Amino acid sequence: MSEEKENIQFQLTDELIEQVEQLIAENHDKELQLLLDEFHYADIAEILDELDLEEATYVIKLLDSETTSDILMELDEDIREKVLENLSAKEIAEEVEELDTDDAADMIMELPEERQEEVISNIEDEEHKAEIEELLAYDEDTAGGLMAKELVKVYETWTVAGCMRRIRGQAKDVTRVHSIYVVDKQEKLIGRLSLKDLIVAKSETKIADIAKDNVDYVNVNDDAEDVAKVMSKYDLEAIPVVDDNQALVGRITIDDIVDVLKEEADKDYQLAAGITGDVDAEDSIFELTRARLPWLFLGLVGGIGAFLIMEGFQESFKQYAVLFFFTPLIAAMAGNVGVQSSAIIVQGLANDDVKGSVNSRLIKEMLLAALNGVILALFLFLFVWLTKDQTTALAISVSLVVVIIVAGLIGTFVPLFLDKRGIDPAIATGPFITTSNDIFGILIYFWIAKLILNI
Amino acid sequence: MSEEKENIQFQLTDELIEQVEQLIAENHDKELQLLLDEFHYADIAEILDELDLEEATYVIKLLDSETTSDILMELDEDIREKVLENLSAKEIAEEVEELDTDDAADMIMELPEERQEEVISNIEDEEHKAEIEELLAYDEDTAGGLMAKELVKVYETWTVAGCMRRIRGQAKDVTRVHSIYVVDKQEKLIGRLSLKDLIVAKSETKIADIAKDNVDYVNVNDDAEDVAKVMSKYDLEAIPVVDDNQALVGRITIDDIVDVLKEEADKDYQLAAGITGDVDAEDSIFELTRARLPWLFLGLVGGIGAFLIMEGFQESFKQYAVLFFFTPLIAAMAGNVGVQSSAIIVQGLANDDVKGSVNSRLIKEMLLAALNGVILALFLFLFVWLTKDQTTALAISVSLVVVIIVAGLIGTFVPLFLDKRGIDPAIATGPFITTSNDIFGILIYFWIAKLILNI
Repeated sequence: MSEEKENIQFQLTDELIEQVEQLIAENHDKELQLLLDEFHYADIAEILDELDLEEATYVIKLLDSETTSDILMELDEDIREKVLENLSAKEIAEEVEELDTDDAADMIMELPEERQEEVISNIEDEEHKAEIEELLAYDEDTAGGLMAKELVKVYETWTVAGCMRRIRGQAKDVTRVHSIYVVDKQEKLIGRLSLKDLIVAKSETKIADIAKDNVDYVNVNDDAEDVAKVMSKYDLEAIPVVDDNQALVGRITIDDIVDVLKEEADKDYQLAAGITGDVDAEDSIFELTRARLPWLFLGLVGGIGAFLIMEGFQESFKQYAVLFFFTPLIAAMAGNVGVQSSAIIVQGLANDDVKGSVNSRLIKEMLLAALNGVILALFLFLFVWLTKDQTTALAISVSLVVVIIVAGLIGTFVPLFLDKRGIDPAIATGPFITTSNDIFGILIYFWIAKLILNI
Repeated sequence: MSEEKENIQFQLTDELIEQVEQLIAENHDKELQLLLDEFHYADIAEILDELDLEEATYVIKLLDSETTSDILMELDEDIREKVLENLSAKEIAEEVEELDTDDAADMIMELPEERQEEVISNIEDEEHKAEIEELLAYDEDTAGGLMAKELVKVYETWTVAGCMRRIRGQAKDVTRVHSIYVVDKQEKLIGRLSLKDLIVAKSETKIADIAKDNVDYVNVNDDAEDVAKVMSKYDLEAIPVVDDNQALVGRITIDDIVDVLKEEADKDYQLAAGITGDVDAEDSIFELTRARLPWLFLGLVGGIGAFLIMEGFQESFKQYAVLFFFTPLIAAMAGNVGVQSSAIIVQGLANDDVKGSVNSRLIKEMLLAALNGVILALFLFLFVWLTKDQTTALAISVSLVVVIIVAGLIGTFVPLFLDKRGIDPAIATGPFITTSNDIFGILIYFWIAKLILNI
């Protein structure tokens, strides 16, 4: 055993990329293999993300499929798609053979439909093939879409000794043994065991006597997000999946859940910023436009609405043109308050953290907005009073308080309403709430100002 | 083994809470214990979150500390704090004895300083006490703050048989054995083993011969966020922690990382919405005001800035009062574009996904914003041309394109700049970017309009 350690803090340097590119250009395959052998597959994937398509494909074809299958799964999705286009169906099937069933199914899912069949027919291991085909049948947003077929299963009638013998066989296919699942003759899940329990037990003991019967599980059709919530709530590192007959069909591990949680958080964050459809900084200008333009268009329509309102009040406020100069302020405050209150609700809903009735929620937000509004209005009053006159100051400040309260109520109500209707409340934050609050805010502002100024 | 399964989808009903409240009111301790025994500690915590403080304390004092310690850790932080206030230092110490060292240290950290010492001195298990005191010394945002002392450690000179014997002892304290860590005589981490490897190996084999030497690890002073990134990148379920002498001092498990990732995502989401300091929907109006008001105040200052700009241009645009009515539109578009582009960058930075130079990034955003801007400006041009006149339409539309480009560039540049300076770029989204873009947007709009209208 050497004294050297893996350096966990892998640094992707320009020198390293240049070195790899040069080795490829000069066809120094042996040296390239030796160099890449030092790195974790996730690090090699980072290197390949930086290379051009021909170079990346070159590396994938050079290394053995045990390593490249893992590298492929770690690649940026767009790059993986292109690299796979450069591989034959047989080559892809070889990669798929090396992957766990869940990753294998994911990789095949990403292929164009006409290639999927071709790749599957090239898988040589019949059992692996059948398992992958089973997984492909599930919706990717369900427990079935997340689970892998790799797991360690024992029958309740076995003894500890017999169990240990057979586990040695099964465990070879399973990267990490979290729990050993106990089933009855009908394959029904009836309990679980840890390796620790097995090691501690006497060899002639029957499995039925040491298995724990309080085994958590999910149904194969359960929503992926719900599975993630359950696993993180109960701190589970793996959970068995059963079908409608309670038969054990698969296992979901925590690393898949980490991905689900990250995707969910990224999606909500993007929605709040007015971006739809999972894009990232590296996507093309066309993809980014498609993700951003609809929300901007909404903002444009809102802006035209604000214009029409202001034009409508033009005659009334001839003597008070200064009022128009405060519309950006009113619109900004209405938007900010709306985003704040909706974000708190959206996050609370995501964390199952919103308690009490809609009414009590609205009353709390009203008090909160009123408190914030009064504090802010006092400053605004002072500013306008000192630079203009007292009546204008009063009209603007009172309006601000009302606008902030209404904005807070809209921001609270809309996500709660959407959630009740089964619509993702996350769309309520961002441009949707700012645009509607801009319009309501300006409208309320002019009405109240008109009232106070007695026009 | 019974045929009944845990129902993973626990439903917190009003009936259940009423039932618990009634049992407490009537002091039916036995029945209450029987009822709660059915539930997972995380579910009991959800029930307690709904009870009032006296009731929650009653339940905590009723159940045994093996269960209540886990319940306490799952409670809402505010509620845990209050329940702990109702417990004596000795009672808290009993709870702490039942917890793993990492949770124990976290619980003690939350206590007021004067109580911390008192609780620690009441811990009876001297080893547990020493370990907790060691953990309390680390910053909570570092690997040391996340790690637990519970782990399974073997010396390279042991045999497999000796190892199995001693592991049976150590493993009792460890909820889940992920990896067995191999150390040399100086306690230096030199390798790892899985239980599977041990089971498969012959009993007289030396540990040094079967240990894998490519063990990933982190330093005790590494940043918690970096540890989370490393563990999710390499799909690790546990990682050993070493000190500066490479000595094994602890272990971090994936469930702690799930919490770090969630907190990080929640924090970024809140910052984007203009909320500082980890609040949730259940916090008090005062706490929520403190989290929201500073950002609203920023918006107010921005609005006053916009007012001053508009007033400054009042004389110039006497003949074109209609231009003022488009300021909310311009401000909204500038804000939306800025939030979109900054969100993409902030997310890309968080995922280590932003490649290439700042310049290439800015050029890409410029092209993207120009494309979006031209499409939107065409619509706006048509609208203003049809309702007003061609020159006004031209002035407003051209301004819109320029404003969108500038807003996109600011939204791209600011988070990149903050990140380079070591400041969390997440603060750049939300009110910060919308406020500055409002002002720049309106200023640019008037300048360009003035130019085109030849005033």
